[in-house]
Amino acid sequence: MSMYDMDLDKVIRKITSLDVKTVGIQFPEGLKVHATEIARTIESETDAIVIISSDPCYGACDVSDWKMKGCVDLIIHYGHTPLPLKYEVPTLFIEAYSNIDIKKDLEKCLKELKNYSRIGLVTTTQHLHLLNETKDFLEDNGKDVILGSSPSTRKGQVLGCNFSSIKDLEVDVILFIGSGNFHPLGIKLFSNTKVIALDPYNSEIRSMDEFADRILRIRFARITKAHSAKKWGIIVSSKEGQYRMNLAKEIKKTLEDANMESYILLMDNVSPDMLLPYLELDAFVVSACPRIAIDDSQMYKKPLLTPQELEIVLGKREWENYQLDEILFHERYM
Amino acid sequence: MSMYDMDLDKVIRKITSLDVKTVGIQFPEGLKVHATEIARTIESETDAIVIISSDPCYGACDVSDWKMKGCVDLIIHYGHTPLPLKYEVPTLFIEAYSNIDIKKDLEKCLKELKNYSRIGLVTTTQHLHLLNETKDFLEDNGKDVILGSSPSTRKGQVLGCNFSSIKDLEVDVILFIGSGNFHPLGIKLFSNTKVIALDPYNSEIRSMDEFADRILRIRFARITKAHSAKKWGIIVSSKEGQYRMNLAKEIKKTLEDANMESYILLMDNVSPDMLLPYLELDAFVVSACPRIAIDDSQMYKKPLLTPQELEIVLGKREWENYQLDEILFHERYM
Repeated sequence: MSMYDMDLDKVIRKITSLDVKTVGIQFPEGLKVHATEIARTIESETDAIVIISSDPCYGACDVSDWKMKGCVDLIIHYGHTPLPLKYEVPTLFIEAYSNIDIKKDLEKCLKELKNYSRIGLVTTTQHLHLLNETKDFLEDNGKDVILGSSPSTRKGQVLGCNFSSIKDLEVDVILFIGSGNFHPLGIKLFSNTKVIALDPYNSEIRSMDEFADRILRIRFARITKAHSAKKWGIIVSSKEGQYRMNLAKEIKKTLEDANMESYILLMDNVSPDMLLPYLELDAFVVSACPRIAIDDSQMYKKPLLTPQELEIVLGKREWENYQLDEILFHERYM
Repeated sequence: MSMYDMDLDKVIRKITSLDVKTVGIQFPEGLKVHATEIARTIESETDAIVIISSDPCYGACDVSDWKMKGCVDLIIHYGHTPLPLKYEVPTLFIEAYSNIDIKKDLEKCLKELKNYSRIGLVTTTQHLHLLNETKDFLEDNGKDVILGSSPSTRKGQVLGCNFSSIKDLEVDVILFIGSGNFHPLGIKLFSNTKVIALDPYNSEIRSMDEFADRILRIRFARITKAHSAKKWGIIVSSKEGQYRMNLAKEIKKTLEDANMESYILLMDNVSPDMLLPYLELDAFVVSACPRIAIDDSQMYKKPLLTPQELEIVLGKREWENYQLDEILFHERYM
């Protein structure tokens, strides 16, 4: 069906054992193409009606429990591991492990790692099952391998907005396994350690230095531009795992104390279209997903900053102490 | 400030008298440009912090009460009249009456109405305050004027999805006051009576016949194309006033009885992007806002049909009995 393990046996067992009448299924963008096939299988093998959540979904910060409350008995959420959030509907998380093999790439990887002895090993949900095999291989080749852990994530796992598993990791290099720049960029900016990314889909192995430098230069430009801003929008997302209203109110107070105008804007999905009615604002601070400001920067006409970048604008933080914004879910209900 | 009466005195009195700490403000798309100015006024004249709802909003079907529950004490909802829905947060509805004058156009209008004696008079929220003046003028000029009423809407008011105020209105012509084609098209398709639209913003007076014919031809083409569809998506919106899950489940059963595949897709805002992952589906039925299929038709690659149009595809309704889909809010909790 797919290069991901959709674990349909487990899903069907769960639906049958709970005698679920209506089940919601939810996927991150990359897995949504499998939705109808999975719905068809569930409906043919159980008595449940399937409701496909079709809103954008970028993480377990964004389970459709609020929107599906009262209309489904169970949610099957694909592609993410649960966060320490209070979900309103019973939710079964299916990791959707990638079926891709990395053995072929590990040998090649050794070359890139030859000057490093202590290696931090991290990945995303889709490749968590490869960590032990990778660790064994590297250790067999004389490396010390460290898998960090944190209260919000699995051992060796990072999220786009949460790098606590690699906090203060004393290593010479971090090896990231997975595709794209999104996660390894975050790792690089968070750790300021050498990061090597192994992409098992195209067998590419690359250092994140250059890409991270380019992104930092863009961040510097945005921060510089925002220095002249007088009117600010403060973006809050109503997604449960991205909702930081208290932070937004603190930012508003800080801006007002600095004689700036500021407006709190609440929205579900953050996109350039949502900001069109607010063209008279000069810049925005994002209290929603920390990666919107960084990764979607080019889509917006006005500077979007993280709360930490605003501190630099206001002279409360030095550029040298640039810090990635994170949502530390385990602190959420403290 | 605006060509609309934003009734800020009333808003400020309400916030002060209720000792509101945090107030949500919400606007339809056309009024969102006033959001920051209104927020600034409220914050300078009261002790409340303002949260601006920045999701798209197309009606009182879509009050941000669920998203703002727990974060505001009061919502100020602009531009729509309340529907008989259970709102989760106390909500003050401000009609945002247009300041535009129609006296100048009424005289001109008489010419278009010269062959008609019984006139149904309808408008949208923004011009409700002009109905009495218009009625008087027309009566002074020898016309019989009828203002229809319904349990979901004010006297003489139509919504884009609810025309019950003009149901079975025995008139020779319907005079609509307001801008755009959206409402008068709905009136024409719903009533199948002659409709004349008076747009007070550009003093244009026009018959809806030709535009409605064009739209009906497009509907016919979409229905024809959907005849070959085997795989259907059934779109449900999670917006409280557009949520018709029972209808969606009935449609699913009907489609399955006709040996078609069908998938229920739940989403907040319906847009072409949301349907991109479901390109293998041949056509969609919309149980959300009845106007999405009709008015946004050109934006979608696959046919989007209303439930009544699906009946035509399945041979359960004749094209001659074409009927506009409506959401009858007063039946919602029955």
